[in-house]
Amino acid sequence: MNFKISKRILFNALSVVARAISANSPLPWLTGVKIEIKDGELILTGSDSDISIQKIIQKNEDDYVFEIQKEGSIVIEAKYILDIVRKIDADEITVQVLDGNLTKISGHSAEFNINGMKSSEYPSIDFTMPTKQFEIHADQLLKIITQTSFATSDKETRPVLTGVNFKADGPNLECVATDSFRLAKKIIKLDGDNHFNVTIPAKTLGEVAKTIDRDTNVLIAISDKKAQFWIDNTVIQTRLIDGLYPETSRLIPTEFMYELTLDARDILNAIDRASFIKSEGVSIIKLSASGKEILISSKSQEVGSSLEKLNAIHYKGNPLEISFSGRYVFDAVRVLNGTVVKIEFSGEMKPFIIRNAEDDSVLQLILPVRTYS
Amino acid sequence: MNFKISKRILFNALSVVARAISANSPLPWLTGVKIEIKDGELILTGSDSDISIQKIIQKNEDDYVFEIQKEGSIVIEAKYILDIVRKIDADEITVQVLDGNLTKISGHSAEFNINGMKSSEYPSIDFTMPTKQFEIHADQLLKIITQTSFATSDKETRPVLTGVNFKADGPNLECVATDSFRLAKKIIKLDGDNHFNVTIPAKTLGEVAKTIDRDTNVLIAISDKKAQFWIDNTVIQTRLIDGLYPETSRLIPTEFMYELTLDARDILNAIDRASFIKSEGVSIIKLSASGKEILISSKSQEVGSSLEKLNAIHYKGNPLEISFSGRYVFDAVRVLNGTVVKIEFSGEMKPFIIRNAEDDSVLQLILPVRTYS
Repeated sequence: MNFKISKRILFNALSVVARAISANSPLPWLTGVKIEIKDGELILTGSDSDISIQKIIQKNEDDYVFEIQKEGSIVIEAKYILDIVRKIDADEITVQVLDGNLTKISGHSAEFNINGMKSSEYPSIDFTMPTKQFEIHADQLLKIITQTSFATSDKETRPVLTGVNFKADGPNLECVATDSFRLAKKIIKLDGDNHFNVTIPAKTLGEVAKTIDRDTNVLIAISDKKAQFWIDNTVIQTRLIDGLYPETSRLIPTEFMYELTLDARDILNAIDRASFIKSEGVSIIKLSASGKEILISSKSQEVGSSLEKLNAIHYKGNPLEISFSGRYVFDAVRVLNGTVVKIEFSGEMKPFIIRNAEDDSVLQLILPVRTYS
Repeated sequence: MNFKISKRILFNALSVVARAISANSPLPWLTGVKIEIKDGELILTGSDSDISIQKIIQKNEDDYVFEIQKEGSIVIEAKYILDIVRKIDADEITVQVLDGNLTKISGHSAEFNINGMKSSEYPSIDFTMPTKQFEIHADQLLKIITQTSFATSDKETRPVLTGVNFKADGPNLECVATDSFRLAKKIIKLDGDNHFNVTIPAKTLGEVAKTIDRDTNVLIAISDKKAQFWIDNTVIQTRLIDGLYPETSRLIPTEFMYELTLDARDILNAIDRASFIKSEGVSIIKLSASGKEILISSKSQEVGSSLEKLNAIHYKGNPLEISFSGRYVFDAVRVLNGTVVKIEFSGEMKPFIIRNAEDDSVLQLILPVRTYS
């Protein structure tokens, strides 16, 4: 293998595929980037076997250099090649397999001879595209990811809760995440009629969010075994999480006796201020609402207490006292990303719902906590 | 105790004294800031018993609010009070000891009641000023610190090497740091005639560097037991390191057979590029210099090799091959902070010296390493 390419193009492509690579993989090949020149294209692949990312660079574009001397392939430790390509002080970089697996990476007056790994032993990854496909704007997909995936569980005891459930049965796509103490649900309309029900690891969605450019469409292809996100010439492929996703719609209350409308910034700042008051590592906030005033308070035997008056935009209902995890409400309000939030309650020990007052595509549900003070 | 003060003034002062505080101190009082109102002044103190920082805020300045209702003192956990004062959304903050040690910190519509600690049990720290004193411009002191303290040892086996030695015997101040593989030495002229020989912990110097403002003078006061750095109304006091500092001047060669002058950026970048090639965790660089060309190379059985040609500004001497720790030379060149560096050698296995070509107040000495290839 022997080719020359613009540093900028190679570095960007390596950075993208390296996102899938875990430096501590037990399989040595998976700590590397597979670099392949075939049919006039440069194909870069990175994988940790759960997530695989492949990026294809074609020849003969106008705005960068890409010249092939010889086809072939090699696997190079991701951290070495990224480091070399980032630091090399040259516009163009030549990558050449010399002898066996020894690979020369050179530019300007510097050259590096790196011990590569034979690409024939790199695990074969099937990037065939599933037939169930839909397109979504990057901006829309980013919103789905940021507004739901934070609510997934980080515990492996119920693996299915570590992913976001994507379900379509007609024109609507419903995305749900829950760790069983809180739940985030986003519904958007897709073009056409779609039918699938898959759970995608939150980790993959995080990598997708980092990779997509806001101004493009993303093609999502889904089978029973995997999901693919196509962004221009890059594909991010992920395994799905096995197991039936719990039926969550019956958990979401539909009738409310209390309704509080607040400036989002006000409640975020108030929770943030009180958050250092923790009992057993958790900051529990008590909300005391009435037509007269809205109070946020917290208390811990060890640290002390806080009390803050909030200005409600609107409150409807009898006086209410309810306690909750400060972080859960903070996270939920933050991702709603609106200026005004509406919180609806059905009782002191019932789950409550937080919405962006100007966007009904998304809801956040939170379970209150019992306090004894 | 009861006083009101501008948030900005209180937060800045707390941030400074908190630098001395270790959250994991075995003495609970030392995890707190001592807050004292006495004789119309606010006195804040933080300490980890090695370093102590005290800041005094006086009343009746024009550009901030500071009103005392009642004198007194309290100790408050540093992380809590910093967090409260940073996040509170008010221009002015009131601090009031309520009942016993319970302290109310309030501003605008928020209030916090924090369990404080009795100040009478806070260790008594003697801030008396030693009589040996000299003044130095902050900029000059910052240079001393950055150009020497990186070369101190981080191992406690020879405690005296974890500090920078400050020695004066007449008008010159000589500052030396060494970990026994490299040495940094800075000499500056002081006003007057000074006589002292003390070793100041590198950690303290780091805190001093973070605290001083570039546009001021720093008064340094030294006794056999402690050193103080006075910056306006702030004093940073440190214990000294016991033990005789080694006599280093005989280690520094004075005759050189080879001399290499280089662009500082060129050598920094070349070493940085080669630094991922490590053997047993260390990146060893070989320099091959001759009148014809200057080569930087590195090699590791596992990773591979690198080779780079440097443009010398000037080389004098016979051909030379010498190997050294890439990081040591990188650190030394970086802190010299010049555009051109001059490296002087006396032989392949002899210590060599790096200087900023435009500043002879500082020298960096490095021991070469033996390689077997």
